[in-house]
Amino acid sequence: MIVGTLAIVGTGLIGGSFSLALKQAGAVHEVLGVGRNPASLTAALELGLIDRAASWVEAGQADCVLLAMPVGETEAVLKSLAPHLKTGAIVTDAGSTKANVVEAARAALGARFADFVPGHPIAGSEQSGPGAARADLYQGRKVVLTPHADTRADALATVRALWEAAGAQVETLDAELHDRVFAAVSHLPHLAAFALVDELAQRADGDTFFRFAASGFRDFTRIAGSSPEMWRDIALANREAVLTELDAYVAALQALRQTVASEDAEGLLKLFSRARAARENWMKKQDS
Amino acid sequence: MIVGTLAIVGTGLIGGSFSLALKQAGAVHEVLGVGRNPASLTAALELGLIDRAASWVEAGQADCVLLAMPVGETEAVLKSLAPHLKTGAIVTDAGSTKANVVEAARAALGARFADFVPGHPIAGSEQSGPGAARADLYQGRKVVLTPHADTRADALATVRALWEAAGAQVETLDAELHDRVFAAVSHLPHLAAFALVDELAQRADGDTFFRFAASGFRDFTRIAGSSPEMWRDIALANREAVLTELDAYVAALQALRQTVASEDAEGLLKLFSRARAARENWMKKQDS
Repeated sequence: MIVGTLAIVGTGLIGGSFSLALKQAGAVHEVLGVGRNPASLTAALELGLIDRAASWVEAGQADCVLLAMPVGETEAVLKSLAPHLKTGAIVTDAGSTKANVVEAARAALGARFADFVPGHPIAGSEQSGPGAARADLYQGRKVVLTPHADTRADALATVRALWEAAGAQVETLDAELHDRVFAAVSHLPHLAAFALVDELAQRADGDTFFRFAASGFRDFTRIAGSSPEMWRDIALANREAVLTELDAYVAALQALRQTVASEDAEGLLKLFSRARAARENWMKKQDS
Repeated sequence: MIVGTLAIVGTGLIGGSFSLALKQAGAVHEVLGVGRNPASLTAALELGLIDRAASWVEAGQADCVLLAMPVGETEAVLKSLAPHLKTGAIVTDAGSTKANVVEAARAALGARFADFVPGHPIAGSEQSGPGAARADLYQGRKVVLTPHADTRADALATVRALWEAAGAQVETLDAELHDRVFAAVSHLPHLAAFALVDELAQRADGDTFFRFAASGFRDFTRIAGSSPEMWRDIALANREAVLTELDAYVAALQALRQTVASEDAEGLLKLFSRARAARENWMKKQDS
């Protein structure tokens, strides 16, 4: 057992799967659920994701608290929790952006900021809610922890041990680098997919276009099926890095446009060949 | 039986699968293979995709000739074939772009242009070559025929019947509209995926970025694993429509950039929600 009592704020896919995995691994004795949505808490109880619903006062007495609600609510949640945190309690989160979460934690936790371990599991699905939770969601997935200068070493070690018990590979990154990296490999592709689908849908003759879209379009736009609320929050929470990536992508598309416009066959072949080789190289490393 | 003898120029995935499907359906008596690559012809023979390799003179005596080699070779192939075409022979193709193919056919076929039925099967795979051919490649897939004003009605009917025998759903479109539609739903996504991967790969710290790329990135960039040579040819063959789509996409990304920059939460939620709804609507129609 790694912790006696775990409290989860937000008992949906991410929090519920964390709980199921830790229960299965015998890494936790009791799991409390906190949330504003009674239906979600009731479902989490019925599905065995949590042992009981709890108040902020009770959650503060847990050994570890995981925040797994939308990232925009971080500061408000931490302000509700802070006055009740028992000595030695650890707080961690599962938000997709990190620099803004660290700032919110610094503002809300005051002297207890050293007990906060920022985290981001690289797992998810277009599905959400308690019903989507699975004990194996984190199996073999990466979890990035972005400890700050004040983070207690033993708090970091405990959070790392919990994620490893859930089956994940834990890596650490600087929060600012984390946000730049995920702006590029996750946030930008999501925005680019949403933009492509919306641009077609806005056309007067959009139906004719969708009518002939096939498997390449389906995969390219799969992530445009993701939660609009979640991606609104991420785009705003990581605004600066997202704008930098949008600019870099538009510049790359404009360079490609110039290559097509000038009928530069060799330039196109070089670009496409480099891209294919880079992707194949990446896929090989993913498999190994 | 729909035709006695079919000749296929280019015995790879597209031509080989057409042959296998028609043989399985009993729609053709004999299939001839024509190509410049002896290894490919030998493999096609061994795999039973063709009954024998043939010269241009022999191919001209077939009832129907399918062009299934790269689209850039269309005019040269038709010039080699034209002098040998027997009376009543039908010529069709499987190229991804149509207006340039129609122009090439008009230039190469002269009086026999009426016997040319331009076509585009919406099927394929990252795999290519004779070994990738499958009898069921076209099962349930769309095939777009783009007959021109001069196309013989009975030639069109025969080509339609062949594709239907291969399991495909045949639709007809104007060639220019075809090229605009596929520039938007196929060519642009391919170019956008190649550009995204290449832009990351060119960065000095690109490895750090690829290291944290996950399933969203994998699907968004799957089509960047496609053939560089084929996509160079398509980008150039459909240059005007591709440039129009690149411009529309860059404009959409710049509008999205403005929405993020101005922290317009409601604007982001609206755009993402519209895109998700449009994609869900499209997926429903695909399933039905």
